[in-house]
Amino acid sequence: MIYNGKKVENIKIAYIGGGSRGWAWGLMSDLALADDISGEVALYDIDMKAALDNVIIGNKFNDAEGAKSKWSYYATETLEQALDGANFVVISILPGTFDEMESDVHEPEKYGIYQPVGDSTGPGGIIRALRTIPMMQVIADGVKKCCPLAWVINYTNPMTVSIKALYETFPEIRAFGCCHEVFGTQHLLATALGELRGIKVEDRREIKTEVIGVNHFTWITEAKYRDIDLFPVYRELVEKYGETGYYEGKDENWVNNVHRTTQQVKFDLFKRYGLIAAAGDRHLAEFCPGKWYLESPETVDRWGFGLTSVKWRKEGLAARLERSRRRVSGEDKITLSPTGEEGVAQIRALLGLEDLVTNVNIPNVGQISNLPLGAVVETNAVFRDSSLVPVMSGAVPTALKGLIDRIVCCQELVTEAAIKRDLELAYIAFIGDPLVTINHEKARELFNAMVKNTAKYLGEYNI
Amino acid sequence: MIYNGKKVENIKIAYIGGGSRGWAWGLMSDLALADDISGEVALYDIDMKAALDNVIIGNKFNDAEGAKSKWSYYATETLEQALDGANFVVISILPGTFDEMESDVHEPEKYGIYQPVGDSTGPGGIIRALRTIPMMQVIADGVKKCCPLAWVINYTNPMTVSIKALYETFPEIRAFGCCHEVFGTQHLLATALGELRGIKVEDRREIKTEVIGVNHFTWITEAKYRDIDLFPVYRELVEKYGETGYYEGKDENWVNNVHRTTQQVKFDLFKRYGLIAAAGDRHLAEFCPGKWYLESPETVDRWGFGLTSVKWRKEGLAARLERSRRRVSGEDKITLSPTGEEGVAQIRALLGLEDLVTNVNIPNVGQISNLPLGAVVETNAVFRDSSLVPVMSGAVPTALKGLIDRIVCCQELVTEAAIKRDLELAYIAFIGDPLVTINHEKARELFNAMVKNTAKYLGEYNI
Amino acid sequence: MIYNGKKVENIKIAYIGGGSRGWAWGLMSDLALADDISGEVALYDIDMKAALDNVIIGNKFNDAEGAKSKWSYYATETLEQALDGANFVVISILPGTFDEMESDVHEPEKYGIYQPVGDSTGPGGIIRALRTIPMMQVIADGVKKCCPLAWVINYTNPMTVSIKALYETFPEIRAFGCCHEVFGTQHLLATALGELRGIKVEDRREIKTEVIGVNHFTWITEAKYRDIDLFPVYRELVEKYGETGYYEGKDENWVNNVHRTTQQVKFDLFKRYGLIAAAGDRHLAEFCPGKWYLESPETVDRWGFGLTSVKWRKEGLAARLERSRRRVSGEDKITLSPTGEEGVAQIRALLGLEDLVTNVNIPNVGQISNLPLGAVVETNAVFRDSSLVPVMSGAVPTALKGLIDRIVCCQELVTEAAIKRDLELAYIAFIGDPLVTINHEKARELFNAMVKNTAKYLGEYNI
Amino acid sequence: MIYNGKKVENIKIAYIGGGSRGWAWGLMSDLALADDISGEVALYDIDMKAALDNVIIGNKFNDAEGAKSKWSYYATETLEQALDGANFVVISILPGTFDEMESDVHEPEKYGIYQPVGDSTGPGGIIRALRTIPMMQVIADGVKKCCPLAWVINYTNPMTVSIKALYETFPEIRAFGCCHEVFGTQHLLATALGELRGIKVEDRREIKTEVIGVNHFTWITEAKYRDIDLFPVYRELVEKYGETGYYEGKDENWVNNVHRTTQQVKFDLFKRYGLIAAAGDRHLAEFCPGKWYLESPETVDRWGFGLTSVKWRKEGLAARLERSRRRVSGEDKITLSPTGEEGVAQIRALLGLEDLVTNVNIPNVGQISNLPLGAVVETNAVFRDSSLVPVMSGAVPTALKGLIDRIVCCQELVTEAAIKRDLELAYIAFIGDPLVTINHEKARELFNAMVKNTAKYLGEYNI
Repeated sequence: MIYNGKKVENIKIAYIGGGSRGWAWGLMSDLALADDISGEVALYDIDMKAALDNVIIGNKFNDAEGAKSKWSYYATETLEQALDGANFVVISILPGTFDEMESDVHEPEKYGIYQPVGDSTGPGGIIRALRTIPMMQVIADGVKKCCPLAWVINYTNPMTVSIKALYETFPEIRAFGCCHEVFGTQHLLATALGELRGIKVEDRREIKTEVIGVNHFTWITEAKYRDIDLFPVYRELVEKYGETGYYEGKDENWVNNVHRTTQQVKFDLFKRYGLIAAAGDRHLAEFCPGKWYLESPETVDRWGFGLTSVKWRKEGLAARLERSRRRVSGEDKITLSPTGEEGVAQIRALLGLEDLVTNVNIPNVGQISNLPLGAVVETNAVFRDSSLVPVMSGAVPTALKGLIDRIVCCQELVTEAAIKRDLELAYIAFIGDPLVTINHEKARELFNAMVKNTAKYLGEYNI
Repeated sequence: MIYNGKKVENIKIAYIGGGSRGWAWGLMSDLALADDISGEVALYDIDMKAALDNVIIGNKFNDAEGAKSKWSYYATETLEQALDGANFVVISILPGTFDEMESDVHEPEKYGIYQPVGDSTGPGGIIRALRTIPMMQVIADGVKKCCPLAWVINYTNPMTVSIKALYETFPEIRAFGCCHEVFGTQHLLATALGELRGIKVEDRREIKTEVIGVNHFTWITEAKYRDIDLFPVYRELVEKYGETGYYEGKDENWVNNVHRTTQQVKFDLFKRYGLIAAAGDRHLAEFCPGKWYLESPETVDRWGFGLTSVKWRKEGLAARLERSRRRVSGEDKITLSPTGEEGVAQIRALLGLEDLVTNVNIPNVGQISNLPLGAVVETNAVFRDSSLVPVMSGAVPTALKGLIDRIVCCQELVTEAAIKRDLELAYIAFIGDPLVTINHEKARELFNAMVKNTAKYLGEYNI
Repeated sequence: MIYNGKKVENIKIAYIGGGSRGWAWGLMSDLALADDISGEVALYDIDMKAALDNVIIGNKFNDAEGAKSKWSYYATETLEQALDGANFVVISILPGTFDEMESDVHEPEKYGIYQPVGDSTGPGGIIRALRTIPMMQVIADGVKKCCPLAWVINYTNPMTVSIKALYETFPEIRAFGCCHEVFGTQHLLATALGELRGIKVEDRREIKTEVIGVNHFTWITEAKYRDIDLFPVYRELVEKYGETGYYEGKDENWVNNVHRTTQQVKFDLFKRYGLIAAAGDRHLAEFCPGKWYLESPETVDRWGFGLTSVKWRKEGLAARLERSRRRVSGEDKITLSPTGEEGVAQIRALLGLEDLVTNVNIPNVGQISNLPLGAVVETNAVFRDSSLVPVMSGAVPTALKGLIDRIVCCQELVTEAAIKRDLELAYIAFIGDPLVTINHEKARELFNAMVKNTAKYLGEYNI
Repeated sequence: MIYNGKKVENIKIAYIGGGSRGWAWGLMSDLALADDISGEVALYDIDMKAALDNVIIGNKFNDAEGAKSKWSYYATETLEQALDGANFVVISILPGTFDEMESDVHEPEKYGIYQPVGDSTGPGGIIRALRTIPMMQVIADGVKKCCPLAWVINYTNPMTVSIKALYETFPEIRAFGCCHEVFGTQHLLATALGELRGIKVEDRREIKTEVIGVNHFTWITEAKYRDIDLFPVYRELVEKYGETGYYEGKDENWVNNVHRTTQQVKFDLFKRYGLIAAAGDRHLAEFCPGKWYLESPETVDRWGFGLTSVKWRKEGLAARLERSRRRVSGEDKITLSPTGEEGVAQIRALLGLEDLVTNVNIPNVGQISNLPLGAVVETNAVFRDSSLVPVMSGAVPTALKGLIDRIVCCQELVTEAAIKRDLELAYIAFIGDPLVTINHEKARELFNAMVKNTAKYLGEYNI
């Protein structure tokens, strides 16, 4: 890595899960648009073919219209080769395949448990964690060996336990988890300012928020735009749209879009807890007691969001594979557009190019005063020259603490269970999850079935 | 109050709920059996007739065979008269009548929510709290005015929020809550020592336990008898009887006895959490997620305990009323037998007659390191000359914390709601309770019905 | 206050101590150089004449070469008039006169206690605090009444107890204390990078530091420049210059300059405690046990710094009065030059014009994990749109905690004493101060003499 | 160990420092007076001859008039032999000889530093700690190997760092430190009750106190006798005798007795800090800033206590050696009298024979809420069947915290330094001690001299 005036050259980024047909392309685009950093990106993937395709695609980004920097992409055969000497490590893997995810998401439906996403929490998130955590341990060991001072950026879900596993394996690791869910709520606040106050906010980054909680169950405790306190604005929005839901794009029919929501869960939570829940409704619903928003598909419908089926994901994958083929062959032209993610901004800040305050998932060292020390939490942090420091984010209010602490304990337990490869302990976490609203016999039956469906990835466990 | 050598005379005890036909007689018996304290007991009850009957009965205790001390009983017309200059205050009231309790316990059954007791937690405990807390505020105000240095012993349920309300109203109050549930588990440990080790323990007080948690959901973290660690003994008991249940009296059929249990809930929790739950199974089940042990009457049956119906309570009351009549008329002779409670032992310790270490409910000042400060918790405490100090009881283990912290937050919220007379806030606590395993619409419907059924006692609320 | 595109107009700043001939002119210059803010500055001073002179001078800044914004200056007769509707309040007062300060600094010399500054800690700082705190209470009451949402920036010493007093008086106050001492150490680090690594750093702001401690006894726990850890660089500097001292300006003779130091105290502390003390040596020495660096003028000399006499200050004041006269009369031309302070940068950040991370003095809400909550500490904080949030700054290491906690307790005690107007309590703080290395009789004698010398300002105390 | 009805037989006690001619005889006497415990005492001492003499003496205690139990005494050649299978371990060693102690106590006098005891804190306590801690590590290793479940009772000074070293070496050790200094203050309170209230208290154990602090700098926060709050009584005592001092034995001249004090330091501290300092004045003075009570022999005289010279100790030793000879030879008859120590009471409580609440030195797990976790502190604890649990003792008040925290940090640092065998770190602790009121050059000189004088015992250090 070389500092050349205001630019940094020869940066090495290792991308674990480098065959990705989504996040990887986004990062390529954001890197190409940054004019003051350049270097190489080592792609590592257990699907070598996918990584090699992305090498071809990645290198084409250098020639896309508007590209401001050059990055050299190549694939490595081993994880160690990718990590060796890296300055930054990006982790964006699919733990298992969509077949395992199909079980995670849909097996519980047989017991009346519906999960709109199923990758962070709930039965699906817990079983996925059992697969993911051993992978994170391998990566952390690699970082320790090959690039102990590298900054490690994780995008993989389940986020919280992934970060926790990285730190448990290599306590000195400089890892953090990134998630864009808060950004969506900032965007919602910006829209509200426009609709209710006639103030046009160009970039959601101009909305300044303080957050507390855990990933996908994050809560805004303070929101400001210049000298405007946005809580009264949001309260007005909730009063106006609390019953009907709020559609930002009027012409779109949300039922057709598995990701769009009407914010009704978010609004309902605000009415009750007084803080602004800062994730998509699909995620938020999964962290609440199961009967609240997920009792049945009809309940889900009533709250105006959708259940993302794995069938839909598989179809999406097929489309992305086709898109990959076309990008490799040159049938599809590479175009640049900013993703809105903060990964590259975080990299630039850590390089000392521009200070940044944004939300991040790291172990609690006191930034949330009434959640357990060591548990991974989501709050703001300051990114500056080789430095990442969380900001003091205060205490979770009592009513919310009843909801969040339960999640935190469950996540702590799942991590411990996975690291010990102890399924019995994992089961104890499982029955403590708010979505597991079934009796002991059924819970055991479901747990066993889900474990069996993902057994290929649980070889080291005491099955 | 006069110290006369090793005796204390002229003690004044105020008994709030002095018309009680259960606890009051027990206290009378224990007082009569104490040979180093004497004085007067002022009985106050909103049912003056009941208090006057107890005056007659109480004074007869002085002449019972084996009585070692004299106590003068009288009734007062006002709370203040009872409290005026009292050295000790005993609170043992029924908040409302069994008609209100019938709604507390049985209304939720319409929604599939079964409560074996219904007076501490769950929908029943929460609605009961809304009635009880304003009464506790009145008592605390009276104590502040009439006897600010008196020691206040509460037996009323819901215990936790009652104590919290007393302290919220008069922060300097010297109040604590007593509960015998831990004693039962000490007795079980003593029995296990006999059965599995052939060691005869005469008194459950010889079993020394450390406890953490909240009332009726208390957990033994350490249990010793002389130099014997009782955890391995208990583990053996659980292994032997975990599936079948453990009947201490072999010839009794537990299904006939609403209070007897087979300890299967306790054993199941031990297998999972590694600590010894120290309350009756009927109580323990109410603090766990609703589907675990209370999904249906059949589930309850399978776990070997019973649902205590309010019909049974009403019948019991009729029997006790008859017994009262016979005691007043002299048809029933007064006999003394120790209750096994620690109330009188606590009084003697606070008077400086004998040091005592026992479990108690008071606000957390750090004795449980990872539950919120100020929340009422149950741990051991040292009772000595005018001094009550909790012992350091450590941290709740992660898996259990997920269960307990949720309860604590709920109880904090209920107290706040009741003190503010704010039903909407009470509703937020209500839907956070582990037994409320129903959706929002049904929960609101149930809450409204239960509030209506107890409306007579909620006059000051924003109904 | 009006947002006009990227500019903010009609800002009202209240300047308490507006007759100042130093800080006020610096702020005027920095304001004139900011191109995106404008408005009015109300100057309030107990010396109305001085404020009126500064009105004339202030308004001339608008016409200085290079001025980018217009500010309207005026004087007010009352504090309330200045505060009324203010968006920002700057406090920069001299509590008492240099006559009182002469006693603060020099009276203790009769007892062998030497203070190089005498305005923050030590006997001088404590007595000055007794004068200052009641003034801060008046200001806080004014803010509460006239501009409760205003941001209050204090420059007055003693800093820590001034901030504490503001918060004790009006807990919702949005106050913080600014100090440039850390900046000097950042400058030193930048210089070291140049000298030892050949890296030219243009602006000390490019050096990113994390700090913990209390004002004037602040410690850098982490220092970075881009990807360079500055601790090894600093260690090298200490090894090279530890014995001889380090003179940044080679041609200047430090003995002639009361403010210049040779950094030997700083270097000595680093060798022992491993963190970089981040204030001038004159300040640092005052927080250490009295015999370490201040046993005698010879000791001070040996450590390469100077004792700032109040005689020198009085002479300086005379020169500044003359300069004021010449500026008012026009004999001296107004020129603009940035002060290097962060006051205007903080104002701009709080207005939402640019995020800023800098060090600040505010009450501890957990940002320093092992100093008392509520005590005023110095750490970094994030300044953004109407928001000021401290960053988590970790724990003070054991060896340093022995030094710092003593100071914190003393400062807490002094504030309590001053608010209660309780000289006996102040005396208890006094004898706990590290510089008070004398016996009880002498300490009492000194305390009484100092109190007497400043009695004019202690009218409300129990003298 | 065998339980036989209400008695415990075959107890094995290991006595490290078993050649002691003071503490050992006291324990022998107390053991002989306990009628429900019996067994064997293994004496280990580096002076084998002394241990063998004590075997003879110890066995004679069995035949003394009034002896209620039999104990078999024998000496062992190795530490391991003594520890092997022990149920209790008593540590009562002299670390080094009185020659080393002579340097500890008197070398600092050359620099104007006077220490009345010199074995707990101050220069003497720190240097003594450097000798003691490696010995404690050897003992803790032995306990870990030979009797990991044994209860370890330490009487050796410096107490705090000795206990800390035991726990650092073997974290599961069941060790605690006993000190009788609090008992003396309880006795003083009892005497005050008699003198000022005419109440005769037979046993200081009837005075119930809550304590916080560190060993020899312990503070009573609550003192009760039955229903009497003893703080007003003590205040009265202080008012009456604050200036003149209080001599319990009127006819004794305190200047002749190195251990007697007039309580003037204790009274002075009470006037200032509002809590009752609970140790002898000689100890208390050593923990305060050096000039307060120890500026010179004249100051010491003025405060009514004495400096215990090591010459006096050496003479005392000679007398005790002679007494030992006479006891061995039978010239002196063995008589029993209770020592007033609580060692045997603690043993009986841990065996389950009687609950006990008394003060003890163990690591802080939160019993003092604002001192560092892990630091060894002195508070009350509950001793019961195989269980030792501290009671919640609250927070140190701000003014006192400034004094105590400094001590705690110093002790933490000394332990770390000794375990690392790092003299430079020890020096940092040394200059932070409140008695080291000299400049750097002199402090270094003194430290070096003291280290040299004790070098025989610092073989493993980086001298």
